[in-house]
Amino acid sequence: MPQTQEHTVKAFDQDIGQLRGLISQMGGLAESAIADAMIALQRGDATLAERIAADDKRIDAMETEVERTAVRIIALRAPMADDLREVVAALKIASVIERIGDYAKNIARRVPRIESEHRIEPLSILPAMGRMAAAMVHDVLNAFAARDPEAALAVCERDNALDDFYDSIFRTLVTFMVENPKTISECAQLLFVAKNLERIGDHATNVAEMVYFAATGVRLVERERGVD
Amino acid sequence: MPQTQEHTVKAFDQDIGQLRGLISQMGGLAESAIADAMIALQRGDATLAERIAADDKRIDAMETEVERTAVRIIALRAPMADDLREVVAALKIASVIERIGDYAKNIARRVPRIESEHRIEPLSILPAMGRMAAAMVHDVLNAFAARDPEAALAVCERDNALDDFYDSIFRTLVTFMVENPKTISECAQLLFVAKNLERIGDHATNVAEMVYFAATGVRLVERERGVD
Repeated sequence: MPQTQEHTVKAFDQDIGQLRGLISQMGGLAESAIADAMIALQRGDATLAERIAADDKRIDAMETEVERTAVRIIALRAPMADDLREVVAALKIASVIERIGDYAKNIARRVPRIESEHRIEPLSILPAMGRMAAAMVHDVLNAFAARDPEAALAVCERDNALDDFYDSIFRTLVTFMVENPKTISECAQLLFVAKNLERIGDHATNVAEMVYFAATGVRLVERERGVD
Repeated sequence: MPQTQEHTVKAFDQDIGQLRGLISQMGGLAESAIADAMIALQRGDATLAERIAADDKRIDAMETEVERTAVRIIALRAPMADDLREVVAALKIASVIERIGDYAKNIARRVPRIESEHRIEPLSILPAMGRMAAAMVHDVLNAFAARDPEAALAVCERDNALDDFYDSIFRTLVTFMVENPKTISECAQLLFVAKNLERIGDHATNVAEMVYFAATGVRLVERERGVD
């Protein structure tokens, strides 16, 4: 390999390493935000909820940083084929993680809208769903870091269980609202929280599909997923 | 200008024209999908609802086409600065329009879950909100086609009115649920529909911000927006 080409290859590897590092960091922040949002919700902790919203700005700033870095890599290194696919995947993954962060922030924002005096019963069923969604985010980031298409596939396969969990919580909440009309406004907030968690799972699955594509060049068949 | 360079410029303009055309088409489909979803919801028309879900696959396919075209442009033309920014903006805008289409599909999917025998009263307040959201999508696509930053800004400014509309519908629905507990399950579906429309407005605003940035190189200050 001529020296200049080798130099370019190394520079590209460094650049893409920087992109991957930024994305892993973003993912870590998003994962903590989900866990913290569920704690804030359980405890009715408005201070923690505010901190989550403030921390989300860091995730947003990192997405902008990923975008700038990716554009710089494309402009300077003019990557081809696999390399270009990896840079484009990084751009898209960062934008999905940014949205996962937004969902966590959104859950946190609902905390002050739920009266802390009566800790309504359905609150107790949400943390397990929160853990399931956060675990999907955690695992897809590991799959991304390891460029492991099999691990990515395993995350996709867990999305159905999360969807079923959501359906069951939806039914539970509606039943509870019928029996306790005074809690309707709060239960409506919890319906949105459950939907946010279900959406986090969809986005983790979306990242998993991108990791799979970036690693193999093969697109997984587009799954049927809703949005809310 | 040397002949080859002129040739490259023309080729780039053609390529970017193709991208813009694809995005306008996608936007038109998404706009119709919103209008049709609201009609299906009003009429309880499950057949129309199914057609919307089927048509959404065309929007998805077009997003993939935009992605392929953008990657090809970057690889072949190695655009710099403003041109690169426009290609990256096109990629991101296509992904947002794809999501707007998903929201319309999601509204359509709720149609069979709402009993058609009793057309519950709150159904009547949703179409106006649907029109407001669809108009934002329509206008932001015009701003994109005309590369008009002022028109893009005007779309951003309408998002607050849509948010207020959502808040008012949320309150109306909760009050209705308290007074008519038998309709809770259906009203919960309508809560999600209203939230979907509010999210469509957020996404139109998001596109408007990208159009503004692509046209001026200046980022609008990140607005505070939720996600659901």
